[in-house]
Amino acid sequence: MPAKSPVIVDLKFIPEEIEAALQGAFPGREVINLADPAHRGRDLSGIDYAVVWKSAPDLFSRAPDLKVVFSGGAGVDHVLTLPGLPEVPLVRFVDETLTRRMSEWVVMQCLLHLRQHRAYEALARKRQWRDLSQPEAADVTVGIMGMGVLGQDVAHKLAVMGFKVIGWSRTKRAVEDIETYDASGLDVFLGRTDFLVGLLPLTADTKGVFNTRLFSRLSRNGPFGAPVFINAGRGGSQVEADILECLDDGTLAAASLDVFEREPLSPESRFWDMPNVYVTPHVAASSDVKALFAHVEHQITRFESGLPLEHVVDKVAGY
Amino acid sequence: MPAKSPVIVDLKFIPEEIEAALQGAFPGREVINLADPAHRGRDLSGIDYAVVWKSAPDLFSRAPDLKVVFSGGAGVDHVLTLPGLPEVPLVRFVDETLTRRMSEWVVMQCLLHLRQHRAYEALARKRQWRDLSQPEAADVTVGIMGMGVLGQDVAHKLAVMGFKVIGWSRTKRAVEDIETYDASGLDVFLGRTDFLVGLLPLTADTKGVFNTRLFSRLSRNGPFGAPVFINAGRGGSQVEADILECLDDGTLAAASLDVFEREPLSPESRFWDMPNVYVTPHVAASSDVKALFAHVEHQITRFESGLPLEHVVDKVAGY
Repeated sequence: MPAKSPVIVDLKFIPEEIEAALQGAFPGREVINLADPAHRGRDLSGIDYAVVWKSAPDLFSRAPDLKVVFSGGAGVDHVLTLPGLPEVPLVRFVDETLTRRMSEWVVMQCLLHLRQHRAYEALARKRQWRDLSQPEAADVTVGIMGMGVLGQDVAHKLAVMGFKVIGWSRTKRAVEDIETYDASGLDVFLGRTDFLVGLLPLTADTKGVFNTRLFSRLSRNGPFGAPVFINAGRGGSQVEADILECLDDGTLAAASLDVFEREPLSPESRFWDMPNVYVTPHVAASSDVKALFAHVEHQITRFESGLPLEHVVDKVAGY
Repeated sequence: MPAKSPVIVDLKFIPEEIEAALQGAFPGREVINLADPAHRGRDLSGIDYAVVWKSAPDLFSRAPDLKVVFSGGAGVDHVLTLPGLPEVPLVRFVDETLTRRMSEWVVMQCLLHLRQHRAYEALARKRQWRDLSQPEAADVTVGIMGMGVLGQDVAHKLAVMGFKVIGWSRTKRAVEDIETYDASGLDVFLGRTDFLVGLLPLTADTKGVFNTRLFSRLSRNGPFGAPVFINAGRGGSQVEADILECLDDGTLAAASLDVFEREPLSPESRFWDMPNVYVTPHVAASSDVKALFAHVEHQITRFESGLPLEHVVDKVAGY
């Protein structure tokens, strides 16, 4: 039996977490963690697998014989744009952990806006005991753009919390207990949406879709008068100059942004300290690294046993 | 047919919300809103009903003929301690709105601690893009003390969000899918609890129960090393000097407090600006005033038709 192919790991996560998660992750298989300087300049030809997240641009020229590429996250746009991506299956990371983390973040952001957290924090700083008129979740319609695995989980959890929830995706998806719209229903969907949640993949179609034109079609009939934009999908889907303008002129009441056109977000960005904007550094659904490696090992085992790979990306659709 | 008895309203809520909610609330019945100076010194004898929340201490001497007293909230300790409370039924406000609002607040607080919100806010103020090691909800056990209507709703919603949830009440309650403990199981319950949620009524038994002795029995095996205390029940159940000491010496990692021993919280309190404490001004489950009046009108209708009142408080148990 030939030796098992090594697996290349090139993940821009927290290095200590990767090291810890790699312990025992790929039994009987060498791991080439490119974060380790020992592998600098190493010949990567003849290697079958790579697990990547924001990998080095020269990875695919250095490793020309890959048979499968694994994305370290649910999104794959950062892989699809890498130079020299080989014509081999690209496998997305789909994992319950990642889904649950995404829902934690989105539900928390919706609750922060609903419960006027920043207003109460401002009162607390002034040591003022004062209650604000408090709409409840059922007074707010959350519209989710992107109704894949993540969007559906978020939708159900927001509904349990009492929010009215509607969903939109390019092609219509039937989702139990959630009213959904497709491309042709965008206007109606936006007109009903008080809190807009972005969970779209980044594709040619979704680039820059969150812009002034879209924001100005959102509902202004919600309890806070103006809509809220919450993006946990991809920064490339948003036009940040438009978000700033809409926050300034009241087209948007507030925003929660986990993703940005350029990451890391520049220290000069106004988003960092706007009173009505929550910023997190692309951590809404950070991959659980142990779960990622378990998923990769599982898919490699399938692949080497002749079973079809799961969660293979449609590179034309881009997700 | 004799004229319907007026209803006295003495609610320390937002005055404009009460005014708005009173429009059409009690058809065919005079409303005596004591917030209106016109009623100062008015003779309140012969009146059957009062709806109260932190009412004036002389209310019951001014209105000696009440047949039913309605609490403006789920808690009734503020009514039970009023001088001269008549020996008539005291009706608690039980309402889905109130329950849902409480769950919104508790779930949000649990998520804020889980997702290290304050740490990310501190990084944002420094304009630093950096991710923190992120446990997920399933890594945290939330222990709820007080498993009445509110506690059970909170428990189910936290479970949907992925938290492990256990419950405690003085007398054991069977709650579907939630492991529960009674008085004899307190030690085991506390030893498993990473985030402690207080939803206890204020009674002789619960006064000061949240103290150093209790906090020091909480789990220190959770992902954040030290436990978190979240109180949305009654301030009288907590010993604030102990909470401060436990936050200072690390017995507690953090806290979320909606209730306090004395309300409003003094401007001098250290709680207002501690980096690991969230303070809100007793608004976790502010009553929806419209829903409150609908509930009162409904119970009065039952009462006047000879039907039994619902949600009558057991004054000996205190809830």
